[in-house]
Amino acid sequence: MSIELISGSITAPKGFKAAATAARIKYQGRDDMAMIYSEVPCVSAGCYTKNVVKAAPVIWDKNITKEDLPVHAVVVNSGIANACTGQEGLDICQKTAEAVSGELKIPADSVLLGSTGVIGMQLPMDRVLAGVKTLAGALSEDEDSGHRAEKAIMTTDTVPKEIVFKTVIGGSEVTMAGMAKGSGMIHPNMCTMLAYITTDAAIDKVLMQEALSATVVDSFNMISVDGDTSTNDSLILLANGEAKNPRITSKNEDYGKFCAMLDEVCLYLAKAMAADGEGATKLVEAKVINADTKDNARTLAKSVVTSSLTKAAMYGCDANWGRILCALGYSGVNFDPEKVTLTFWDDDKKEEMLIYDSGKGQDYSEKEATRILSAKHVLLKADMHMGSEEATAYGCDLTHEYVNINADYRS
Amino acid sequence: MSIELISGSITAPKGFKAAATAARIKYQGRDDMAMIYSEVPCVSAGCYTKNVVKAAPVIWDKNITKEDLPVHAVVVNSGIANACTGQEGLDICQKTAEAVSGELKIPADSVLLGSTGVIGMQLPMDRVLAGVKTLAGALSEDEDSGHRAEKAIMTTDTVPKEIVFKTVIGGSEVTMAGMAKGSGMIHPNMCTMLAYITTDAAIDKVLMQEALSATVVDSFNMISVDGDTSTNDSLILLANGEAKNPRITSKNEDYGKFCAMLDEVCLYLAKAMAADGEGATKLVEAKVINADTKDNARTLAKSVVTSSLTKAAMYGCDANWGRILCALGYSGVNFDPEKVTLTFWDDDKKEEMLIYDSGKGQDYSEKEATRILSAKHVLLKADMHMGSEEATAYGCDLTHEYVNINADYRS
Repeated sequence: MSIELISGSITAPKGFKAAATAARIKYQGRDDMAMIYSEVPCVSAGCYTKNVVKAAPVIWDKNITKEDLPVHAVVVNSGIANACTGQEGLDICQKTAEAVSGELKIPADSVLLGSTGVIGMQLPMDRVLAGVKTLAGALSEDEDSGHRAEKAIMTTDTVPKEIVFKTVIGGSEVTMAGMAKGSGMIHPNMCTMLAYITTDAAIDKVLMQEALSATVVDSFNMISVDGDTSTNDSLILLANGEAKNPRITSKNEDYGKFCAMLDEVCLYLAKAMAADGEGATKLVEAKVINADTKDNARTLAKSVVTSSLTKAAMYGCDANWGRILCALGYSGVNFDPEKVTLTFWDDDKKEEMLIYDSGKGQDYSEKEATRILSAKHVLLKADMHMGSEEATAYGCDLTHEYVNINADYRS
Repeated sequence: MSIELISGSITAPKGFKAAATAARIKYQGRDDMAMIYSEVPCVSAGCYTKNVVKAAPVIWDKNITKEDLPVHAVVVNSGIANACTGQEGLDICQKTAEAVSGELKIPADSVLLGSTGVIGMQLPMDRVLAGVKTLAGALSEDEDSGHRAEKAIMTTDTVPKEIVFKTVIGGSEVTMAGMAKGSGMIHPNMCTMLAYITTDAAIDKVLMQEALSATVVDSFNMISVDGDTSTNDSLILLANGEAKNPRITSKNEDYGKFCAMLDEVCLYLAKAMAADGEGATKLVEAKVINADTKDNARTLAKSVVTSSLTKAAMYGCDANWGRILCALGYSGVNFDPEKVTLTFWDDDKKEEMLIYDSGKGQDYSEKEATRILSAKHVLLKADMHMGSEEATAYGCDLTHEYVNINADYRS
């Protein structure tokens, strides 16, 4: 039984509703608060930023997902990050959850919170509370309410990032949906991203957390837009069991299928974020093959997509492969530069173009290389000839628009 | 006896000559090759890139400076890096040194080489050899020949970086001069930089190498322009003993004075490189005080000047301090965000402006903060309140011009 891509939004799995509203947190004239809700309590799993400076909602959510508490709702705002906001920021989390609790008649500690936006500003409590009230009244399982929720959590994102898969587990149809925002302040160890995944699968919490922690290593932790790891990164997975599949309680075939679907969702969302990096004109994929260890493969690949000089060259469609070699070289991984083979994938001709081998540049056509690098999706491949491990990292180019966006983000 | 800043160039120390020529390596209509020469043999010390991918001249120089070989000359070209050039690149080093050897009647292994520019291209051997001939015939101890040599090694640099100090050691006047290039591909662990320091001090090689290796930790290794560590970074120190001071053979007072002068030279050149970072409009200095360990202070300070988001905010004169806190937070160093105090130095009023304290932003004037950040030299200070160690890192802002320069560097 295969995994099938279907249309839909975060409300696609059975029993999930969503809503969005224009709460005027910081933006005007657009939705900026969203809610996801399941009347049936969910088991939850979470992965969070490793930044020492953690936003208040990250601290709030971690306390809930690490315990085996039933989760009913997630409330997210865009515009203000509620990071570096001291005790007042934590109090705002408490009050927001209590307001949701009152509206939906659920425990306050069954409410997860997410924020993204400017660091250091306090959330306007009156607007947040008014937003909660509106959201609670607008909850709907319509596909469109999910699309609106996704759009409400976007900041500098230019496109929504949503994905839905279905499969059959233990004879039952199981659906999993993901939505995410993330464009700047994006770097391995969770990017400046908020990602929410819902599923109607029935599964044990511990197994689900293990699956989530495992999948981020090669998805969300392999993307980089600007090398900045945010204070607010959160990836939340909720499962309400409404698919009525035999509950997954061991690492059996059902679990394998669940993990495979989760991998697909996370990889799709991660790549979508890299491609929509602030100011980006293209997705840059760096694949490292035949490295000696998996960790080294990941480190090498990440170093390439993080290099400012490589990213600027990609923007200019300039086959300045020396910068790629250079980025591999300062990654901290030891290798023999004479043994590396570097190729660019030619997506028109469906073949590889040999760029660098045996310690020096090869006799390729600069014009052809520029054509290849002009694609919306560029794939750079480095064969280390050291072993059999591989990894892929996802990034984007560094553009004038990135500087535009970030020189006066707050204004 | 204090250390005195004097005017001059790399030829200021007794017995050193220099020359420059337009060899048309890659640039047209400007000097692009330089030579530094001492008839009296020099003891040498060197620090090089830690990039696994090392340019041919780095491999060449390391072999010489690690041995106790007398050094007479340094030949540098700009335009082509001679990196990722395989055996042919190494052969070019050999041939260049042999040509210098023939012209100046010195051993080939007394000739150091430096290159900066595009990675992957081969040097045009005929032009290099013609350049060597011209340089050998043009050597002069005139101040101006040193200035021309400095300009000849520049690439995207917008200003020359030269400094000369003198002091008295053991009753003799000792002079030390430095020149450097470096603007892009600049990051801790030696930036994309070439720096040459001459002195007429008499000193043992081992002590000199120890002094050089120690001083880079808080100078060249504390600057970042773009996070890319180059293949070609080289810092060379030559001492010919012509000052006739009692030879420094132990860590006595004379050695202390030598080290102090070397520190001044290296810090000046490092800061000049950061300020002249590609596209930069200002020097950004991040000072971390009261950290628990020296290494942690360095790591924290470097993380701030390396953050793309902080750099873009500095360009926009935007007091987006949350990005600074965030960069401290993902540095890998553990600390309590509630205990950090962040200030900006107001160079007009000669006082600090309090920005962040006790876990949240303070009540400062955004207008005043913007005025402070509009200076050509911005100083950000973070007090960690954890111990008594401090460190300072030097960087620059991220600008449209950086993208312009690097999107089509090769064209």
